[in-house]
Amino acid sequence: MVETQRFEISMKGQGDARDITEKVAAAVSASRARAGTVTVFVVGSTAAVTTIEFEPGAVVDLNRMFERLAPRHEQYQHHFRWGDDNGSSHVRAALLGPSITVPLVDGGLTLGTWQQLTLVEFDTRPRRREIVVQIVGE
Amino acid sequence: MVETQRFEISMKGQGDARDITEKVAAAVSASRARAGTVTVFVVGSTAAVTTIEFEPGAVVDLNRMFERLAPRHEQYQHHFRWGDDNGSSHVRAALLGPSITVPLVDGGLTLGTWQQLTLVEFDTRPRRREIVVQIVGE
Amino acid sequence: MVETQRFEISMKGQGDARDITEKVAAAVSASRARAGTVTVFVVGSTAAVTTIEFEPGAVVDLNRMFERLAPRHEQYQHHFRWGDDNGSSHVRAALLGPSITVPLVDGGLTLGTWQQLTLVEFDTRPRRREIVVQIVGE
Repeated sequence: MVETQRFEISMKGQGDARDITEKVAAAVSASRARAGTVTVFVVGSTAAVTTIEFEPGAVVDLNRMFERLAPRHEQYQHHFRWGDDNGSSHVRAALLGPSITVPLVDGGLTLGTWQQLTLVEFDTRPRRREIVVQIVGE
Repeated sequence: MVETQRFEISMKGQGDARDITEKVAAAVSASRARAGTVTVFVVGSTAAVTTIEFEPGAVVDLNRMFERLAPRHEQYQHHFRWGDDNGSSHVRAALLGPSITVPLVDGGLTLGTWQQLTLVEFDTRPRRREIVVQIVGE
Repeated sequence: MVETQRFEISMKGQGDARDITEKVAAAVSASRARAGTVTVFVVGSTAAVTTIEFEPGAVVDLNRMFERLAPRHEQYQHHFRWGDDNGSSHVRAALLGPSITVPLVDGGLTLGTWQQLTLVEFDTRPRRREIVVQIVGE
């Protein structure tokens, strides 16, 4: 059985992060699947999906690490070629990755209590994001 | 066909890493699946799963990179909010990610000879980790 | 339904990156699957797969970030133990990861317009890479 669910979220731009666990769990509940895998995929190349203990401090810490890795106000070749200002967004998103796959067991995601599915926005302007939740199982 | 296997490993704390390839392969062998995908997922937000050539030198090198990325003894907002000392653990784990999906072909994982499934502990104290091996296929 | 496709690409060594979207899409087209997940996996521990807006500037930027994270000409414990010069390759590849899973919906990958599946070579010498495309669905 394959079931596809989608939802959208409006993000405020670089540094914004959202706990999407409930939305993904609702998508799973709306399907008939009880066991399998749930792949959460964000469409686009300047956002990413991961898990973190979703609390404001850890989100600040995560963004600070990315600022160290790929500072927003450095020069990027992507800027020179395209006139954009979001070179930092592209490399951060490529590093974190657009998708995550979570086991589905007995109708529930196997996340830990303090482990939330999190959409991380890296673009330098507000974006409306489309999330695809792909459920493969039985 | 969906089959779930689980195992636990006691980890010594930040910097500890374990080759879990044999345990995952044993979980696959214990199932009836011969083809599909094997998703290896660690429950919790301060550990991660990846592949590396598992030898002590490369593990030291990996930990040194994470220390540069997110030094253990810096100040983290997560510390101020929760009185914890594991802010570095959370951001490192979010970056590396809790899961990996490996193709299963003819009953075997498609890993390279020098490519081992590796559980990386980032928490600052010893932890007992639960690994979920989710096999979807036929 | 499970279908496995494979292809190979000759890579020039550290810093080389290739847009493999068309090859993966061709593999999907060659299968009978219309819905499910497509897992793209590179065999070996010194290359990785991600998505990025594939244009030469962003690729330069990505490599520059990895050079900051794990400089090629630093000393690595992996060098001392094995006489290799590719310690940077191993830790970069472990961080980015060997696989990515993309939803397959109505016969197509759910990638964004500017989001390409990209093979990133980290080894210090040219390598021929094997990519496994694992399609699970219906």
